[in-house]
Amino acid sequence: MASMATLFMQTPNPTHSFPKYPKSHFGSGLKFSISVSKKSSKNYPKARIFNGLIEPDGGKLVELFVKESQRDVKKKEALTIPRIKLSRIDLQWVHVLSEGWASPLRGFMRESELLQTLHFASLKLEDGSVVNMSVPIVLAIDDAQKQQIGESDKIALFDSDDNLVAILSKIEIYKHHKEERIARTWGTTASGLPYVEEAISHTGNWLIGGDLEVIEPIKYSDGLDRFRLSPAELREEFTKRGADAVFAFQLRNPVHNGHALLMTDTRRRLLEMGYKNPVLLLHPLGGYTKADDVPLDWRMRQHEKVLEDGVLDPETTVVSIFPSPMHYAGPTEVQWHAKARINAGANFYIVGRDPAGMSHPVEKRDLYDADHGKKVLSMAPGLERLNILPFKVAAYDKTQSKMVFFDPSRPQDFVFISGTKMRTLAKNKENPPDGFMCPGGWKVLVEYYDSLVPSGNGRLPEAVPA
Amino acid sequence: MASMATLFMQTPNPTHSFPKYPKSHFGSGLKFSISVSKKSSKNYPKARIFNGLIEPDGGKLVELFVKESQRDVKKKEALTIPRIKLSRIDLQWVHVLSEGWASPLRGFMRESELLQTLHFASLKLEDGSVVNMSVPIVLAIDDAQKQQIGESDKIALFDSDDNLVAILSKIEIYKHHKEERIARTWGTTASGLPYVEEAISHTGNWLIGGDLEVIEPIKYSDGLDRFRLSPAELREEFTKRGADAVFAFQLRNPVHNGHALLMTDTRRRLLEMGYKNPVLLLHPLGGYTKADDVPLDWRMRQHEKVLEDGVLDPETTVVSIFPSPMHYAGPTEVQWHAKARINAGANFYIVGRDPAGMSHPVEKRDLYDADHGKKVLSMAPGLERLNILPFKVAAYDKTQSKMVFFDPSRPQDFVFISGTKMRTLAKNKENPPDGFMCPGGWKVLVEYYDSLVPSGNGRLPEAVPA
Repeated sequence: MASMATLFMQTPNPTHSFPKYPKSHFGSGLKFSISVSKKSSKNYPKARIFNGLIEPDGGKLVELFVKESQRDVKKKEALTIPRIKLSRIDLQWVHVLSEGWASPLRGFMRESELLQTLHFASLKLEDGSVVNMSVPIVLAIDDAQKQQIGESDKIALFDSDDNLVAILSKIEIYKHHKEERIARTWGTTASGLPYVEEAISHTGNWLIGGDLEVIEPIKYSDGLDRFRLSPAELREEFTKRGADAVFAFQLRNPVHNGHALLMTDTRRRLLEMGYKNPVLLLHPLGGYTKADDVPLDWRMRQHEKVLEDGVLDPETTVVSIFPSPMHYAGPTEVQWHAKARINAGANFYIVGRDPAGMSHPVEKRDLYDADHGKKVLSMAPGLERLNILPFKVAAYDKTQSKMVFFDPSRPQDFVFISGTKMRTLAKNKENPPDGFMCPGGWKVLVEYYDSLVPSGNGRLPEAVPA
Repeated sequence: MASMATLFMQTPNPTHSFPKYPKSHFGSGLKFSISVSKKSSKNYPKARIFNGLIEPDGGKLVELFVKESQRDVKKKEALTIPRIKLSRIDLQWVHVLSEGWASPLRGFMRESELLQTLHFASLKLEDGSVVNMSVPIVLAIDDAQKQQIGESDKIALFDSDDNLVAILSKIEIYKHHKEERIARTWGTTASGLPYVEEAISHTGNWLIGGDLEVIEPIKYSDGLDRFRLSPAELREEFTKRGADAVFAFQLRNPVHNGHALLMTDTRRRLLEMGYKNPVLLLHPLGGYTKADDVPLDWRMRQHEKVLEDGVLDPETTVVSIFPSPMHYAGPTEVQWHAKARINAGANFYIVGRDPAGMSHPVEKRDLYDADHGKKVLSMAPGLERLNILPFKVAAYDKTQSKMVFFDPSRPQDFVFISGTKMRTLAKNKENPPDGFMCPGGWKVLVEYYDSLVPSGNGRLPEAVPA
């Protein structure tokens, strides 16, 4: 959320205490839920009933894992069919698809699905109902690969280490109209869009869609796999906690106290609405991000400190990693971020200014109108069931000497600090305004910037604080 | 339809006769229906019931004309409020809106309508139902105009001759994100898109939406106004003719015998389906077209000859002008072309290869995948009620010595001629292959190209024959 890039709050409140919660509260119960549910949940695709949680798109959560009893058969089959090597981002999409974040999608998009995504940000199901689907989930191949596939109706997908990942069957190969895909997804074709440069420009001129059968759950062995809960696992966790409302907070940057205030306040509002046990899904994005974002491992360390410091209540907070790559496609992408969380059981979605936005890669302006994200989200087909909670902007109120939600009727009482100022502070190992971020979390950020070797021009990646 | 640019048919059949139908058959009954219905239909907005015809979008046809009794009041009011001068294309959109082609839209789009159009190609109505709306219908103003409007909640719209056209009230002024509008509408931002250069690039950085009240019906005084039937007038005409099915054929180029075969065959198919009196709406686009398209007046003369020559049956054909400007936005625009015809009473829509397509303005290829138009149309939200009839491609069958629908199982038996060849023939005043176009229609085309003064490079506009 570039939203908060320019808006965060300063408080000089020195009495703010940071009680040390036991470290196990971070992802509390999550390891357990993983270890218990993993085997049963991922062995074969099936419909699940999650009492009290919002229904997944299409009525049931689609998991695309091969039954354990079928694995050997599939592995043998994979040796006999054409093979395609997946990029890092391709693999992240296989992960996303395999766990049902994109339910009811059953694999990489065929052309009819891509066209609906590009033109309508939604898919029409056989029963006439509509689910949201705003970003293309497609697999590109080049001419040589297309020729190699020939008349085969299925292919095997391998990772960069030549491990078998999945089989794609009932395939459909169709043209990769890159310019049109980019224009309709991003609303610009300006050069320098991070995802485009990383995952589209140099890829092949064909797309291949089909039904995906994933041999076993995707793991990254980076020490963070235990935080990568699938939608099914999250639903089980919410059910176990007796959640009667789940509110999701997507982020791809360090958590500051403005976020915390927002999340705490959201829970308060939900309690006021009559919910007995609203649970927060604090859901950092774990797939591809651009080079100047804070990397996932540093963000997770920072989030951990925030929870340890007691800024958020671990008992009503589930921290998990959302495996999707980041498009930075603003109003188009925020729909994907929201839709995927429905599948994970969230019925409330917090949206800020300029969600999934960034600076225009060429012109000196934001790429998207900061208000379009929440407007588009509120009108998006297939998201009617989701309650959209627009951000209130928090800022430091000089008259109260604490952070509160900004009151536009008395702007002179508030202080905002820019993201550039923030980055400069972290880079110079200075402390932020009291109450901006818990000291432990701030320390992680300082360490991160300290770990970077400045590039030739001496510039460091920006610490965008939202 | 760039579709037929490369595909039309040749027949050497010299016995083809062109019986002279009385000229009054062209638009037969149309003058009458205009003179009778004009007064009653345009005096005030009201819901109409048209027995047996498809319902307009939103349930009733929206007409935005000021009641005759209110005209003087409105004219006086217009003198007291800020005024904006309309471009030629702006005026065409006022025309479109005023007659309800874009029903249920009641004026130039406000931001929420534009966002839905750009992201979802549809509008959600208050009752939760969805209507298609794929192209932005917006009015741009510049900084000076915005300042001049100030706090006024309404403005007066004037044409280039300073005649009052309409009042726009309950106005909303919002940013004109041109790049994003273009990218999401055309799927490209390449320079050289005709509508963009004509109506977007040089226009202001703000858009102004609101409710439109049009003082009186838009007239062009070009001798063709009698052919500009409103949706209400068309519905009355179809009802008068006892149509139980109306099939619309959008075109912006001269009619050749391939089109005629297609239209005749469509009627045959509809009769086979059990309809008793299918009526063809032959509906040339009358608004802005790019410089190398054949101008409206020449096209109308050509269409007139085609009807005179008996290629189409005047008794079951209504020729009328569709007042919309042309975007050349392919799959996005074809939805608009179809949706507008629902409002005019058509429940069948004929779609060809690459509808509303053109060459890429920069690269050497078609801008759109030739099959995307009909695919997108078949999946478009809000168009479920419309029966989409994909083109069958006609060609000259050497074994039968006549035009028939192309049979891909025996391609060697068919002859196609390119659009370039076509243009060269017309330019050189040579005759086309027998049966390609009725002689009278061809003569009009030859006259048109003869009337052009070649530009410096000696190149003439292309006669794209579909």
